[in-house]
Amino acid sequence: MIIDVHGHYTTAPAALGQWRDLQMAGLQDPRRTPGAADLRISDDEIRETIENNQLRLMRERGLDLTVFSPRASFMAHHIGDFETSSAWAEVCNELCFRVSELYPAHFVPAAMLPQSPGVDPRSCITELVRCVEQYGNVAINLNPDPSGGHWSAPPLSDRSWYPIYEKMVEYDIPAMVHVSTSCNACFHTTGAHYLNADTTAFMQCLDSALFQDFPSLRFLIPHGGGAVPYHWGRFRGLAQALNKPLLEAHLLNNVFFDTCVYHQAGIDLLSRVIPVKNILFASEMVGAVRGIDPQTGHYFDDTKRYIEATPHLSHEDRSQVYEHNARRVFPRLDAILQRQGR
Amino acid sequence: MIIDVHGHYTTAPAALGQWRDLQMAGLQDPRRTPGAADLRISDDEIRETIENNQLRLMRERGLDLTVFSPRASFMAHHIGDFETSSAWAEVCNELCFRVSELYPAHFVPAAMLPQSPGVDPRSCITELVRCVEQYGNVAINLNPDPSGGHWSAPPLSDRSWYPIYEKMVEYDIPAMVHVSTSCNACFHTTGAHYLNADTTAFMQCLDSALFQDFPSLRFLIPHGGGAVPYHWGRFRGLAQALNKPLLEAHLLNNVFFDTCVYHQAGIDLLSRVIPVKNILFASEMVGAVRGIDPQTGHYFDDTKRYIEATPHLSHEDRSQVYEHNARRVFPRLDAILQRQGR
Repeated sequence: MIIDVHGHYTTAPAALGQWRDLQMAGLQDPRRTPGAADLRISDDEIRETIENNQLRLMRERGLDLTVFSPRASFMAHHIGDFETSSAWAEVCNELCFRVSELYPAHFVPAAMLPQSPGVDPRSCITELVRCVEQYGNVAINLNPDPSGGHWSAPPLSDRSWYPIYEKMVEYDIPAMVHVSTSCNACFHTTGAHYLNADTTAFMQCLDSALFQDFPSLRFLIPHGGGAVPYHWGRFRGLAQALNKPLLEAHLLNNVFFDTCVYHQAGIDLLSRVIPVKNILFASEMVGAVRGIDPQTGHYFDDTKRYIEATPHLSHEDRSQVYEHNARRVFPRLDAILQRQGR
Repeated sequence: MIIDVHGHYTTAPAALGQWRDLQMAGLQDPRRTPGAADLRISDDEIRETIENNQLRLMRERGLDLTVFSPRASFMAHHIGDFETSSAWAEVCNELCFRVSELYPAHFVPAAMLPQSPGVDPRSCITELVRCVEQYGNVAINLNPDPSGGHWSAPPLSDRSWYPIYEKMVEYDIPAMVHVSTSCNACFHTTGAHYLNADTTAFMQCLDSALFQDFPSLRFLIPHGGGAVPYHWGRFRGLAQALNKPLLEAHLLNNVFFDTCVYHQAGIDLLSRVIPVKNILFASEMVGAVRGIDPQTGHYFDDTKRYIEATPHLSHEDRSQVYEHNARRVFPRLDAILQRQGR
């Protein structure tokens, strides 16, 4: 079985974007602010966007199931205030829930949070609870920079984040640490901001005692961990200089990397350097890089091909990366699969 | 011959730090502001710090020459205003010049610029000219984020940077794109901010036509290019999605990567993915990671060992990485070496 732990509903029906446009117009003229009921998307529209895109590609590539969350770049937590983010998260999370209801064998939802710059992360708990308890979400996406590229929030090791972690521990759900659109002209969203955030979050964990406070907290660092595996020696050396334990003990019971690295050499490095137990299969498809690699004739984001071809993974390793690590890191996903007899 | 293109005077005599402390005190109480003449460092003090540190390690490792610039983390362009940065750059650049005068066979200077947040980059030209014409500097360090982690400057493709580029082209000198200390609590300086800046700068170049405007402009991206080589497939795919030419044509006549990657797997990836002509040997020693790797028994930053061991470089490739690429990218360094009969 092959589980892709990193998929977003990037292909949602156009009505969702129109609803968001209205919501943004409402920031200037509150009379235009739409209600949740103003978003009308039929099941057939959902089916069309899923079957022609993610599900088609999953079938072509032999992927069984995707952990599916709202489009990361559209979270845009920097827009408006907490109420804005709250209403937006509600409609986006409901849509992913509906996808999971229509395709229970293929999609399991993960939640975006109604984060907002300068607002206490505790404010996100209500939506988190709703998504876990009512929608069966198996994870959350946590944005370490709700400002969208201005990095005005404290590091993830700051105690202000702890209420979210307490709830994650209570529910035994992991967080994928994933930023959204950059509104800082310095940072291209998918070419710089995403990768920078991955590296930044890892180093925030390294330079802290966060996992002493939360021994069972689990973070998934997407996009292959940003710059981290490529600079693994640097991080081992920095941990040593900062008098931290070896990374295996200090971080690798809690921090995991996905395989959204879009060429063979990158996956080879990831699987050579990072212990197999810490690597989870993912493609972030349909996502940042949608084209076909002229060097291979295959989609850049068809990451299964690289996993299959890498010399650093045995058959048993691959089944860990494809399935067993995900079932361990996402226990609620495992529970769903067990109920399905899988 | 082995040229290390990335060294900083991290071991400068304590008097330099004391001068800087006084300068910062002067921001509160201008009567305390020191003049350049208040910095007194003897040639013997310089010899002691160089011979016991960089030169000792260069001899142990078999490196012949280092392109040597002021300590990157101490540039701290966010402190004070242009006058502050200007006075600080002057004393730091003079010190590296003195090192190069004392050890002309081993150190060639590169300049820090008196950048300051919100100040026109044109203001740096006077110091740049002084360093090239009077001190024989062969390169500059260009900080894409003088704010120190708040990223308030425009991207490197913005026309406000062009006066610096015009002068670089006139003098035929490259810039190493190198940030300084982070004063944003989100970013650990050497574990996040440095690597993020490398990735960010590369993507700013990718998402622009900068090298159409300056076909002979050359940037060295340090720290092995941040996350870039590890995500080379992602960047190739993004270039394609942005309708840019292939990276070889779009960037690789102008953008170069150093080898400051502190483990074998990282150097293996770099040398597998990036064309040999774009890789320049460097160690950034004595720098961010000064310890000994318990897995190898050697210094993390002894990057020559990884270059020697990588299967992706032939003997001829190695001599390009060690010497010939540096002489091509730093023509004024080549001219100095030729005058020395090397």
